[in-house]
Amino acid sequence: MKILVLGAAGMIGRKLVERIVKDGGVGGKPVSGMLLFDVVAPKAPADAPFPVEVQAGDLGEPGRCEGLVAGRPDLIVHLAAIVSGEAEADFEKGYRVNLDSTRNLFEAIRAIGGGYKPRVVFTSSIAVFGQPFPKDGITDEFNLTPLTSYGTQKAIGELLLADYSRRGFLDGVGIRLPTICVRPGLPNKAASGFFSGIIREPLNGKEAILPVAETTRHWHASPRAAIGFLLHAATMDTAPLGQLRSLTMPGLSVTVGEQIEALRRVAGDTVAARIRREPDPVVQGIVAGWAERCQPERAQSLGFKAETSFDEIIQVYIDDELGGRVPG
Amino acid sequence: MKILVLGAAGMIGRKLVERIVKDGGVGGKPVSGMLLFDVVAPKAPADAPFPVEVQAGDLGEPGRCEGLVAGRPDLIVHLAAIVSGEAEADFEKGYRVNLDSTRNLFEAIRAIGGGYKPRVVFTSSIAVFGQPFPKDGITDEFNLTPLTSYGTQKAIGELLLADYSRRGFLDGVGIRLPTICVRPGLPNKAASGFFSGIIREPLNGKEAILPVAETTRHWHASPRAAIGFLLHAATMDTAPLGQLRSLTMPGLSVTVGEQIEALRRVAGDTVAARIRREPDPVVQGIVAGWAERCQPERAQSLGFKAETSFDEIIQVYIDDELGGRVPG
Repeated sequence: MKILVLGAAGMIGRKLVERIVKDGGVGGKPVSGMLLFDVVAPKAPADAPFPVEVQAGDLGEPGRCEGLVAGRPDLIVHLAAIVSGEAEADFEKGYRVNLDSTRNLFEAIRAIGGGYKPRVVFTSSIAVFGQPFPKDGITDEFNLTPLTSYGTQKAIGELLLADYSRRGFLDGVGIRLPTICVRPGLPNKAASGFFSGIIREPLNGKEAILPVAETTRHWHASPRAAIGFLLHAATMDTAPLGQLRSLTMPGLSVTVGEQIEALRRVAGDTVAARIRREPDPVVQGIVAGWAERCQPERAQSLGFKAETSFDEIIQVYIDDELGGRVPG
Repeated sequence: MKILVLGAAGMIGRKLVERIVKDGGVGGKPVSGMLLFDVVAPKAPADAPFPVEVQAGDLGEPGRCEGLVAGRPDLIVHLAAIVSGEAEADFEKGYRVNLDSTRNLFEAIRAIGGGYKPRVVFTSSIAVFGQPFPKDGITDEFNLTPLTSYGTQKAIGELLLADYSRRGFLDGVGIRLPTICVRPGLPNKAASGFFSGIIREPLNGKEAILPVAETTRHWHASPRAAIGFLLHAATMDTAPLGQLRSLTMPGLSVTVGEQIEALRRVAGDTVAARIRREPDPVVQGIVAGWAERCQPERAQSLGFKAETSFDEIIQVYIDDELGGRVPG
């Protein structure tokens, strides 16, 4: 199995590559080679039991997508995108990177022809949904109502993925990721950053700022769960998908207060006390429009799995990023 | 008010222009000029009380969209598209005409800037929806699940319209038209052609072929209702739309048997006897995937109106196309 990963230098991309290298295969099938691509050269994994090639560039460059798929990868994981805030700040860049590049990729695949039909895993987002939401959560039948340019671009990607799949040009699975929590690394300026920050920073002995009320509810899954989604999407039987190729991934709906209680249970009062309340009306306003819960019944019935408690999500962070223990 | 009509040579475009010329304005506002565009030159209406310019070309030509909006029309009615069958038969042409041209238009509008923000009426279609449908009809919250390339392109157009509106580049209203019935003119090869054919041909003394069962149910509105939708979309207050810019238009859900009963009531047994049953499994298969009924509550609450009986739909055809009487 030959694999192409687009957006391989990002947090999810790096973890996916690490995991495939560790497993030596995907879904029990051995990997014969990987091509990693991003705007900055992804780091090639050490000790991979198969050849790994690394390229850097722009999917909008003439011939770039054609070059990337020329080796006819069996699996293409398309993670490349600019994030919500950037797509909102730079309208043209958002459409160029998040829409045109996706279409370039699909067109490059179609151009190969001759029965070539790779599995394409496309990362979408719950940002394809917008208020007003159904009271009991976003169902699998709920309308695509993005309220950002990023969400619009992802929704269009989903529609293209479905049509190219229906036409037989590729075999697509779109996965709408929950907010990924706990993100490792440094705090960032994303409006969603505090959801991870209030867990990660205290666990690392640092203070975190909470800009919203503890009643704020949101939809989460761990990085490890996200990698599980990608690998399952890469190998699942797509026949049961029919023509509805994109799926809302399972996740966990919790309030910020429940996040903090979980932190207290897992790491104790001292750690949980490192959260400083500093309400920020701007962040509150942005977050108020976000999905609070989903009902991902199709994805669950098709075998996608996420954490079922926030304690578990915190433990994943401690296991995967802190070597299994909270620093003294 | 300056008006630009794209796709002005089609059946709906011609009727819209005729109506605006007759009214001398739109929604009570006088028209100061019209520009009509299509791939073949639209016929300029006789006796228009305002200047009418006519152009023919392709919206994909470099600079074409920029040229069309250079006069800063206040209202742009975008009807230009290739139909479902053609978009299915020619994948590239469908995306070029139905997607790229729409985006070219929106980009040309955005490029003007300086507060220019025309009302853009975009004709979408119930083809943005696909099976499986909710039992009681397609609600305003139902997912965009197109099962054709045409439906995909229209759904993407809706998403772009919403995002460009949200950003303040234009003031868009997307209207999802029912199947238009009774279409005037000659029989065509569209799979949906018989819905009009079984009414139009018998009324004109000719035999019509019915390829599906009389239990086949579908969603209809007259050409006159469609023009009403366009004019209402052109002048309505868009504030209540919020960020959900596309609306499923009202229509009438009837079976083919109910269509025939209405024909019998309106025009008598002799006329209704001109329908020959000739089941066609191919047509039956295509039609089986189509919407049977919608629940267009938002559009109704915003003042859009359609016929409430099929007798009325037949009478519209007789009044508008046959001078008010059925030929002996």
